Amino acid sequence: MALLSFLTPVLAVILCLVVGFMLVKSQKTEANSTAKGKNKRASKSDFRPWVDQDLQDDTEITTGGRDDDEWVDSNEEEDLAHVPYSPPCYCEETMLQRSKSFYILMNQRRSVRFISPAPVPREVIDHVILTAGTAPSGAHTEPWTFVVVSDPETKHQIRLIVEEEEEMNYRQRMGDKWVQDLAKLRTNWIKEYLDVAPYLILIFKQTYGILPNGKKRTHYYNEISVSISCGILLAALQNVGLVTVTTTPLNCGPQLRLLLKRPANEKLLMLLPVGYPASDATVPDLKRKQLDDIIVHI
Amino acid sequence: MALLSFLTPVLAVILCLVVGFMLVKSQKTEANSTAKGKNKRASKSDFRPWVDQDLQDDTEITTGGRDDDEWVDSNEEEDLAHVPYSPPCYCEETMLQRSKSFYILMNQRRSVRFISPAPVPREVIDHVILTAGTAPSGAHTEPWTFVVVSDPETKHQIRLIVEEEEEMNYRQRMGDKWVQDLAKLRTNWIKEYLDVAPYLILIFKQTYGILPNGKKRTHYYNEISVSISCGILLAALQNVGLVTVTTTPLNCGPQLRLLLKRPANEKLLMLLPVGYPASDATVPDLKRKQLDDIIVHI
Repeated sequence: MALLSFLTPVLAVILCLVVGFMLVKSQKTEANSTAKGKNKRASKSDFRPWVDQDLQDDTEITTGGRDDDEWVDSNEEEDLAHVPYSPPCYCEETMLQRSKSFYILMNQRRSVRFISPAPVPREVIDHVILTAGTAPSGAHTEPWTFVVVSDPETKHQIRLIVEEEEEMNYRQRMGDKWVQDLAKLRTNWIKEYLDVAPYLILIFKQTYGILPNGKKRTHYYNEISVSISCGILLAALQNVGLVTVTTTPLNCGPQLRLLLKRPANEKLLMLLPVGYPASDATVPDLKRKQLDDIIVHI
Repeated sequence: MALLSFLTPVLAVILCLVVGFMLVKSQKTEANSTAKGKNKRASKSDFRPWVDQDLQDDTEITTGGRDDDEWVDSNEEEDLAHVPYSPPCYCEETMLQRSKSFYILMNQRRSVRFISPAPVPREVIDHVILTAGTAPSGAHTEPWTFVVVSDPETKHQIRLIVEEEEEMNYRQRMGDKWVQDLAKLRTNWIKEYLDVAPYLILIFKQTYGILPNGKKRTHYYNEISVSISCGILLAALQNVGLVTVTTTPLNCGPQLRLLLKRPANEKLLMLLPVGYPASDATVPDLKRKQLDDIIVHI
């Protein structure tokens, strides 16, 4: 009996330790299954810090390695001659003037849904795309494809695909919020400009490339690179007086990729209808943030 | 004594329960912190197809919903007056001329690592940032903060943080590939321009905003929006004759965010050293893809 009363606390402690251990283990398993991708990445970064937690895009990590943060593959660069670089240099007064007038020009840019069917010279579009192609890109991979659609039948097919998905999105929203004004909502999923605009520019990011030996080449930061390129494209359009509206059609990527016969490594990032603004075009009276709201000087 | 021998197992059980509870709790906290945003997204997208598989960025899905692909929140827009929009319109010849000269200007842009310490008027930088702020953004959230660092001490702190991480990256690579030329490699993690350039522009994306009621507001497509803004910023820098190199410092985001005292909703997207090119600046002799390699006409 004395032995038993001595053993009881010991047994209780052992029992508790076992239960506690099992609980902790089940928590760990749960954590593993919910943290999946994140976890994989974390365990990868244990031995190689490819992926900045603050800088995740959906770059597919495949073969090869990215060791440089400067967006140029230093292996390739070692084989390249370096050449002197002396771009145009302006005096301070001219710089100030140029910085002001470019700001004024860009500040006039607005997203415009009312696009004129008037034809636009194709050579202008070619120059705009060439300009977009001057963007920097991770390891100089230039991971972009600009599909310029002017064929009316293809434009219409694109419209059907986009509107079908949009209608589904709106109907689901209506299910949540109840229907108040059907007609009003309806205008939101009708994208007339997809038929009307003389050009639709569909911008695809190449998530990987194919090396001469058939292996995949990782395109690091492809989404950021192509988005930067889109920024330069928007500037180039504004510079020639053309308008667009930045759209990222939800869920339409795969269908549009098949319609336009793009390969599997390309994914749709953006769809821009491009043309002159319609003569009666309007835009919502949005304001932009002030300089003090977006800049911090240190 | 009998009471004591009876109480001992009870106390042991209580003690074990407390210890076990604490262990489980610490595991849970750990699991939460590793599975963060990923987890939220997965559970939300189960009942609502917000997230285009082709268009994932690391937008945190929180309150509210994104139903529109046009980057303007239609709820807000309904309250806004529409105003006529008539931007400058150029004749075809002028358009062609403008598209060509802008392409020539932008095509001269190169990533430059050799930056002159010569001072640059702050007003020029302000205009460049204002220009970047004209970019479109998902639901007009303008989710960007531009931290412009000219203080030498802060620039040096940034350099120390970036170089420490870079050195680790390179040393790990050396472990893989064996050391062939230490001196050559060394130059790759030394970032002199971080001290030398008159300005460092650190671009943060705001992954969410704070509503007046204290709740989080989702910033849809914040990474794409801020990258587009960076594209316009690069164009604005080129337009005034300043140079930079696009860098995305690996793993340095959290440290730099703390150094610059940015709030938790801001994550570093890019770091741009900005100035005039050094008089002896060189660039690798890279070529860009031809138009036919990046454009598809349909």
